[in-house]
Amino acid sequence: MVRGYKLTELALQKSFSDTVWLLLRGELPTELESKMFGAILTIAIDHGPGTASGLVTRISASVKTSIQASVAAGLLAMGERHIGALDSAAKFFIENKETADLADLVAELKSQKIRIPGFGHAVLTKDYRSETLLTIAKEVGFYGQYSKFAEEVEVELNKISSKPLPLNVDGAMAAILLDLGFKPGALTGVFLIARVPGLVAQATEEAQDDTGLRRLSEDEIEYTGPSLRKIGV
Amino acid sequence: MVRGYKLTELALQKSFSDTVWLLLRGELPTELESKMFGAILTIAIDHGPGTASGLVTRISASVKTSIQASVAAGLLAMGERHIGALDSAAKFFIENKETADLADLVAELKSQKIRIPGFGHAVLTKDYRSETLLTIAKEVGFYGQYSKFAEEVEVELNKISSKPLPLNVDGAMAAILLDLGFKPGALTGVFLIARVPGLVAQATEEAQDDTGLRRLSEDEIEYTGPSLRKIGV
Amino acid sequence: MVRGYKLTELALQKSFSDTVWLLLRGELPTELESKMFGAILTIAIDHGPGTASGLVTRISASVKTSIQASVAAGLLAMGERHIGALDSAAKFFIENKETADLADLVAELKSQKIRIPGFGHAVLTKDYRSETLLTIAKEVGFYGQYSKFAEEVEVELNKISSKPLPLNVDGAMAAILLDLGFKPGALTGVFLIARVPGLVAQATEEAQDDTGLRRLSEDEIEYTGPSLRKIGV
Amino acid sequence: MVRGYKLTELALQKSFSDTVWLLLRGELPTELESKMFGAILTIAIDHGPGTASGLVTRISASVKTSIQASVAAGLLAMGERHIGALDSAAKFFIENKETADLADLVAELKSQKIRIPGFGHAVLTKDYRSETLLTIAKEVGFYGQYSKFAEEVEVELNKISSKPLPLNVDGAMAAILLDLGFKPGALTGVFLIARVPGLVAQATEEAQDDTGLRRLSEDEIEYTGPSLRKIGV
Repeated sequence: MVRGYKLTELALQKSFSDTVWLLLRGELPTELESKMFGAILTIAIDHGPGTASGLVTRISASVKTSIQASVAAGLLAMGERHIGALDSAAKFFIENKETADLADLVAELKSQKIRIPGFGHAVLTKDYRSETLLTIAKEVGFYGQYSKFAEEVEVELNKISSKPLPLNVDGAMAAILLDLGFKPGALTGVFLIARVPGLVAQATEEAQDDTGLRRLSEDEIEYTGPSLRKIGV
Repeated sequence: MVRGYKLTELALQKSFSDTVWLLLRGELPTELESKMFGAILTIAIDHGPGTASGLVTRISASVKTSIQASVAAGLLAMGERHIGALDSAAKFFIENKETADLADLVAELKSQKIRIPGFGHAVLTKDYRSETLLTIAKEVGFYGQYSKFAEEVEVELNKISSKPLPLNVDGAMAAILLDLGFKPGALTGVFLIARVPGLVAQATEEAQDDTGLRRLSEDEIEYTGPSLRKIGV
Repeated sequence: MVRGYKLTELALQKSFSDTVWLLLRGELPTELESKMFGAILTIAIDHGPGTASGLVTRISASVKTSIQASVAAGLLAMGERHIGALDSAAKFFIENKETADLADLVAELKSQKIRIPGFGHAVLTKDYRSETLLTIAKEVGFYGQYSKFAEEVEVELNKISSKPLPLNVDGAMAAILLDLGFKPGALTGVFLIARVPGLVAQATEEAQDDTGLRRLSEDEIEYTGPSLRKIGV
Repeated sequence: MVRGYKLTELALQKSFSDTVWLLLRGELPTELESKMFGAILTIAIDHGPGTASGLVTRISASVKTSIQASVAAGLLAMGERHIGALDSAAKFFIENKETADLADLVAELKSQKIRIPGFGHAVLTKDYRSETLLTIAKEVGFYGQYSKFAEEVEVELNKISSKPLPLNVDGAMAAILLDLGFKPGALTGVFLIARVPGLVAQATEEAQDDTGLRRLSEDEIEYTGPSLRKIGV
């Protein structure tokens, strides 16, 4: 039984993502919530073997271990700078959404070298995933105060930044999930659910192709410690 | 891009579980594959806080750590005896499905005290999840040689076992996934994907209720080591 | 080569804990540093199967998985409330060690229900490990400003607390490691090194005794969700 | 209390590595056992940031997460091909140490393309760590049947191999630990204990230098999937 519903009935009548929503929210989603939430999970499902979590999952699979271990390793390569920022972004949105002067706030943070979570990307200059999610949010009616505020922050941030700082998929997901009624503190978990299939696929591919142990070769490493010393000297 | 499709188009047009299938199989599922695969993921989504993985996830969340850490800990409490048996079960089905005398085989394994993976459950005497999945498999046309063999093994096993050894959800999933064309070695990963939402829900609930550190109290532990010794004596 | 020394020479001439110090600090320890650091690592080596990390390691080992996975799971059950508090305790000591009125500070924190990291224990009312470490610190000359401050906090805290809040081993280790010159941010790692042997021993014992899958039985779990509902009702 | 001894007395009188031995073996080591075991732990303490486990620990630390998570991730990048082979090597030594014709056995395994665990290294052609450990083993009297057999296998293997296959540190540790009386199934855990300080040092260095998120850049990744496809086409 999940939140009062029988698993056997859910399996017959409801989609996997609707049952995920039920687990997290306690109620089945409406049709529009279902569409929005399905799109959020799907768009975050994978981002390739070069991400911190994808790379770690593949290195782990290359040493020959269990798939559980490789996927767990991938999760442990998620943190403030990769996927783990949703709840920090949500905190920022909640605390500042009624700020009187957003340009001021953004400038102040920049001067203190504080990075706003949910903006910027290691590779992308514009995050097409955020754009798609916000477009869907507008269509199905979940473009609310947080989504709007996130886009306003993006505008102000890019007025004063020397390099592009797009609203990234973490930031867009955080804003829309808040507009969908998710509680702060419960958002990063949604991204974990979305990305685990990507990690499973990376680990399975690595194990089945089996091209050998992944590590750095000696000439990729620079030793920066002291030169040879003798004990007792 | 996932297997040739744009993520943004998948997010608009395809369900999350269909995109999971695409990631793992390289093609989008047919309508019947989609129904079967969605049911498999949904029925395995959670099995409560008392399972090894659910309990470990909650203990981890209770010490105050990140959700990534708690879910990873839960994955690491999956092994041969809990969720991790799908690929072993698949191996058993593949290697033995054409055995001439199944009753003989099962008796022989019992005499050697070898447990067949995918049968038996710590709590359930009949696994209603297996029954539901096999019913759906029959309806949508994926009740093939492996599903049939799994049920035959269940029958033989219970003729000679002193306690009920139901075809459990691991075993049923393994058989149906083989009938769906999944390759051996790629099955346990499907269960991980299915169960991660359950672990996320357990961790989130534990963190939000926050009833304190979970551990055993001293009177729940029995010290079985030697009595007090002195160094050098 | 480790920090300029050959591993082969270290293995012949230096103890394991001295080489740990070398790795973390960049220099070999003096004789007194060696004695203090060895005592710190030894006293924290294990605290039984009932701790959050010990229990999680055992549950993981009971499902039949690798020792790496079980020890990693144990590490993931360390957080602010169990072992992971050393760096928070150090931060508190550094920020407040020159406070003009410690009694005031402690009262203020109590009134805000802010728990000072490094004090209190789930089971112990007086932490004999802290006492031993501080005794050694006095003997070998590392009872410095942080150790002294930690004991002063303990005194003030227990004047106003309704239940005993001993300086626990996390707090004592944090204070002494600061007095030994360890940098804040590098302290929790020392406890991980110290406790991993305990986790390895728990996992090995569990695997070798092999008393079956550890989980909660159904009657140990209370379902607190809604009663049975029908989809679409 | 650890195996009958008080932790407080052990901390005052015994080294960390002696207490590790006590935990794992149930008795304090003799002086010679202590020397041998200390050397084993010390020589395996770290092998740089380029190893699978070192690299994964650093990637994890670079995303900004807890040190527990980064060290756990490193443990999960240990498997059959990196550190996790000790117990497989031990199994091989035990099962084959009385083989009548070792050259035959080695040739047969080569023809079946079965790799003997404990031999070969991704970077080293001769493992100086094994040589040092075996030298010490001879000196202190623990060069027994397993150490001897491991060296014999190395000789036979390199007679017929086209590339060097040195007895690596995993293999040498496995052999000597068996000669020290450790039980098969309990050996990999010893390497975990030895290497965790290295992982802690890698994670701490990464966090303190903080040179940003480690991942592959787009031009380091080759997309090998199908070219652009349209849904429903």
